[in-house]
Amino acid sequence: MFTLYFTPSTCALASHIALEQAGADYQAVRIDFARNEQQSPDYLRVNPKGRVPALVTSRGTLTETPAILGFICQTHPQAGLAPLDDPFELARMNAFNSYLCSTVHIAHAHKRRGTRWADDPAAIEAMQKKVPENMSACFDLIENEFFTGPWVLGERYTVSDMYLFTIAQWLEGDGVDIERFPKVAAHRRRMAADPVVSKVLAAQQLAL
Amino acid sequence: MFTLYFTPSTCALASHIALEQAGADYQAVRIDFARNEQQSPDYLRVNPKGRVPALVTSRGTLTETPAILGFICQTHPQAGLAPLDDPFELARMNAFNSYLCSTVHIAHAHKRRGTRWADDPAAIEAMQKKVPENMSACFDLIENEFFTGPWVLGERYTVSDMYLFTIAQWLEGDGVDIERFPKVAAHRRRMAADPVVSKVLAAQQLAL
Repeated sequence: MFTLYFTPSTCALASHIALEQAGADYQAVRIDFARNEQQSPDYLRVNPKGRVPALVTSRGTLTETPAILGFICQTHPQAGLAPLDDPFELARMNAFNSYLCSTVHIAHAHKRRGTRWADDPAAIEAMQKKVPENMSACFDLIENEFFTGPWVLGERYTVSDMYLFTIAQWLEGDGVDIERFPKVAAHRRRMAADPVVSKVLAAQQLAL
Repeated sequence: MFTLYFTPSTCALASHIALEQAGADYQAVRIDFARNEQQSPDYLRVNPKGRVPALVTSRGTLTETPAILGFICQTHPQAGLAPLDDPFELARMNAFNSYLCSTVHIAHAHKRRGTRWADDPAAIEAMQKKVPENMSACFDLIENEFFTGPWVLGERYTVSDMYLFTIAQWLEGDGVDIERFPKVAAHRRRMAADPVVSKVLAAQQLAL
């Protein structure tokens, strides 16, 4: 039995969808950012980073979305959520996930988490201003270079689709019109209509 | 035969060490940041992100350090550079690499790459000011929570050691005294004395 610590509207959604899609034995526990619960002593014992997601397993806690997604794929091979037998395709999947994690999520984070990188309020405002431009540049690359179609990696539905869906949810809030990226927009609509995705979104809302 | 595109003093060092340690058949090609070669049309055809590292394989180009490192491990299992048969340990390795990529490297990048996230020179200066504090916080976590010893993951020497060594090289330039982190400092000394690491560092210098 795994325990996933999540907060709605964060990148933890990708891991949550992956657990559900894989048929994993798990429970999902909400961490309330509004009450700063991610910095509580109890949660810091689970995840000293004070972030979500964290996946508690019988052997210890895992963090970082790309690592959690890879772990779910490898422990649930029957779900077929990653090209586990093809090192090149698997690396392509990991490269996509790593790009989302280290470039796209970071571009987004400068909107609401600017205090991570500067103390001066004017600097934080300057960062916020650039978010639409940076998110647009990221999604231009995704749309034109990395999205194979019909799914991110091609014919196979993988955890990269769940992760892209998760981050594409943030575009409007970041001041970017998703319709500028027709493949990403169609992908998001298809994902939103998926029963597993709907079930997870509903469960996260119920936890509010 | 792989081709690794690298620039000295960047995160591409980790992939370069991994290729050499794995005994891979590869050539290393230098991209000159001083001449903005990473944005040249020729290089953008290799890697539309305009960054290093990029690893060209017979099946296409891979980017993102965690993905390239995982690919080298999986295609050279005899080198034993990752716990490939243990999903939890492999995820622990990937989580460490993902943290370096998406948090530590990003903390560092705010020193010289602030223009990625703001246009205002005062904002860029404010970001630079916070770099020592952020890099220190990251290395506190590494030292106290994630570094198992004697290697990052414990008894096994993995690509996480190469990646940590690569980023630990940046600490002094970021205004942080590595001796504040005794385990990381000892690890860096041990890595620097490794013949494979020395060979790669020398090859990168020769390419200058």
